[in-house]
Amino acid sequence: MNKQRQNSIQKLLNEKKIGAFFLWRSDELVMSLGYQSLWGVSVCLFPFEGTPILYIPELEPRDRLPENVILKTFPWGLMDCSNPWDILYEMIKEDLTQLGIESLPISYIQHIGQSSPPLMAGEGTPISPDLREKLAYVSKGGYQDITSAFLELYAIKNDVEIERIVLTNQVAAIGIKAFYDNLIPGKSEVEVASAVEAAIQNQVNDNDILYAKAWPQIQSGINLTNGGRFNRSTGKKLQSGELVMIEMGVCVNGYWADITRTGSTGDLHAKYLRIFEVVSEAQEKAVKAIAPGKTTGEIDKIAREYIVNCGYGPFFNHALGHHVGFRYHDPGNPLVPNGNAVLKEGMIYTVEPGIYGEELGVGARIEDNVLVTSDGYRILSDFSRGLKWETK
Amino acid sequence: MNKQRQNSIQKLLNEKKIGAFFLWRSDELVMSLGYQSLWGVSVCLFPFEGTPILYIPELEPRDRLPENVILKTFPWGLMDCSNPWDILYEMIKEDLTQLGIESLPISYIQHIGQSSPPLMAGEGTPISPDLREKLAYVSKGGYQDITSAFLELYAIKNDVEIERIVLTNQVAAIGIKAFYDNLIPGKSEVEVASAVEAAIQNQVNDNDILYAKAWPQIQSGINLTNGGRFNRSTGKKLQSGELVMIEMGVCVNGYWADITRTGSTGDLHAKYLRIFEVVSEAQEKAVKAIAPGKTTGEIDKIAREYIVNCGYGPFFNHALGHHVGFRYHDPGNPLVPNGNAVLKEGMIYTVEPGIYGEELGVGARIEDNVLVTSDGYRILSDFSRGLKWETK
Repeated sequence: MNKQRQNSIQKLLNEKKIGAFFLWRSDELVMSLGYQSLWGVSVCLFPFEGTPILYIPELEPRDRLPENVILKTFPWGLMDCSNPWDILYEMIKEDLTQLGIESLPISYIQHIGQSSPPLMAGEGTPISPDLREKLAYVSKGGYQDITSAFLELYAIKNDVEIERIVLTNQVAAIGIKAFYDNLIPGKSEVEVASAVEAAIQNQVNDNDILYAKAWPQIQSGINLTNGGRFNRSTGKKLQSGELVMIEMGVCVNGYWADITRTGSTGDLHAKYLRIFEVVSEAQEKAVKAIAPGKTTGEIDKIAREYIVNCGYGPFFNHALGHHVGFRYHDPGNPLVPNGNAVLKEGMIYTVEPGIYGEELGVGARIEDNVLVTSDGYRILSDFSRGLKWETK
Repeated sequence: MNKQRQNSIQKLLNEKKIGAFFLWRSDELVMSLGYQSLWGVSVCLFPFEGTPILYIPELEPRDRLPENVILKTFPWGLMDCSNPWDILYEMIKEDLTQLGIESLPISYIQHIGQSSPPLMAGEGTPISPDLREKLAYVSKGGYQDITSAFLELYAIKNDVEIERIVLTNQVAAIGIKAFYDNLIPGKSEVEVASAVEAAIQNQVNDNDILYAKAWPQIQSGINLTNGGRFNRSTGKKLQSGELVMIEMGVCVNGYWADITRTGSTGDLHAKYLRIFEVVSEAQEKAVKAIAPGKTTGEIDKIAREYIVNCGYGPFFNHALGHHVGFRYHDPGNPLVPNGNAVLKEGMIYTVEPGIYGEELGVGARIEDNVLVTSDGYRILSDFSRGLKWETK
């Protein structure tokens, strides 16, 4: 847990006169403590002042826990314990009393909603619904909903967090290199995806990269007409002279990047090349406009107007970008037409214009992750975005 | 949607006098309709008689939808729609009236709890919490909770479903072969995991395997002492003469297998070989005991007593097995000490004894997926379970 983040959370709790906030969703634990839960059932009691208490299940690994928290275990996952949740509830109740805040309101996000997967990503196993309901009554001060204010904390990343998200982008670059290396006619979309996943996962070491996982989706040729509606990899084999797109979420140690590139398997028909060039130009213009004080609508407008002026307006059918870093899509104000939220230093936005359509027979998108700095922007994913891999 | 499954669901709704059940969690949609949602926000209105209505978002692919349902779309994901959930709510309300069941009680599982990921597995994006709360009031007949009775439907698989789970196990075999092929000193745990993931994902074609994904966790040598508490892959490199374990969930077209194998990187010390042999023998004995009419406790006892008699009792610290097929771990009665639930034809159980401990310096588990047949059992994962890959 970094001090800046602890301060920003406790400042909010003081403003809202909340005694403690309970964290339990995977991305909340990363955002607040920098802690990536393995089982997905850890819970943190974050008091308005002093040191947070982290309750982990007995089965949780002990070697990758956050610093500067008080650790307690509860018997989830043990064969002889039929209801660990009641035990956890009593522990939390007791700790509120010990902290002398048993009469102050508590808060937490009650529903899982949009959230990142825990390490055991093959199955969602959140804390029990019963506990989630019961926790609202754990304090004499009652429950107070500060969900939207809490989610606003995701928007501004501090220096420690930016450094971690930079690392994620560095790992993503290795996956993107593997993507370009595998643009070989005859390979299937899933084979390209597999190569990217392996390249990224294989970066795990016992030093700074303890977890690295990618969720790439590869679409090629005609399949790209759907690229603005959904992304998935199929058994379709790449053909020569096709556009091929990768849409990819990457998670390293709990911190996320969201990258898109569009490459080609060989010389393109002029009409496909033109689409790529328009997307590329629109993306670059929008990125260069990013600066504190601008509005989300202004940035969106730059890419959108360019695409409209080039005659592809109806084919750019989604938002220009969204916050990213603590999960694949962070909460916060997206870059959309007429958006009036103001960009601030420390925000990280995806910038991802695209053009796709059945009438066009193809699609393309380019997406970078861009930090708003004190006087402009910094591209965190500043690696090749052409039709072929290019080393700077 | 297969007719047998439709009948079993509608029989339950008739018994409970429920007008309609709403399905929205990924594994519910697979169990009920054989449908794997891409975005994870599709909802099905399953009436007590007649044809189910499936509401899909505009952005959902149209080429892999279930047959024998009425399809409707709602505007989730479209840039100009700020609240698709209110629209979906009104559609459901209107359809209940059209079906003439607007005064009968409705039911659904309100919380997400344990569930499988949708195709877009990098981020959970379930239907909005607001809709989940509001749906309870959509019918004049009110909400009735039949969660536990509904989850009982997961336990018995019909012939169509068994065939699909067999396919998943066939794909899993290819991943397990890749696991054994990669037991090479110098490779890291994550590198072995990557090879397995690629082998499985690469089975996707445009014919019968539209989606194949594996969540393998590889542990080797000393890391296996934790194999009974948690599974994960690290950057540790395999050394010669080590035990190496793969714990793996595999999903093909929405249907799951859960397989564990323990291999070796070369000649083992006698004490490690002994642990492997005890696990192997315990597992085989328990599998062979499976038959309709037996209790969950009887099956658990066979493996557990054998391990206790061999002197490793304290090191087998988890349940013997659980239901599997619609997700990594299906709901239902597990194989546990003193369990008194009765095995029935059509159930699929994992059988997975293990021995692990810091004192032992290692660990091992073997896990198969076993169908209860009319007069005994059938191993669906009937491929090599030795220290090396062996073709039958």
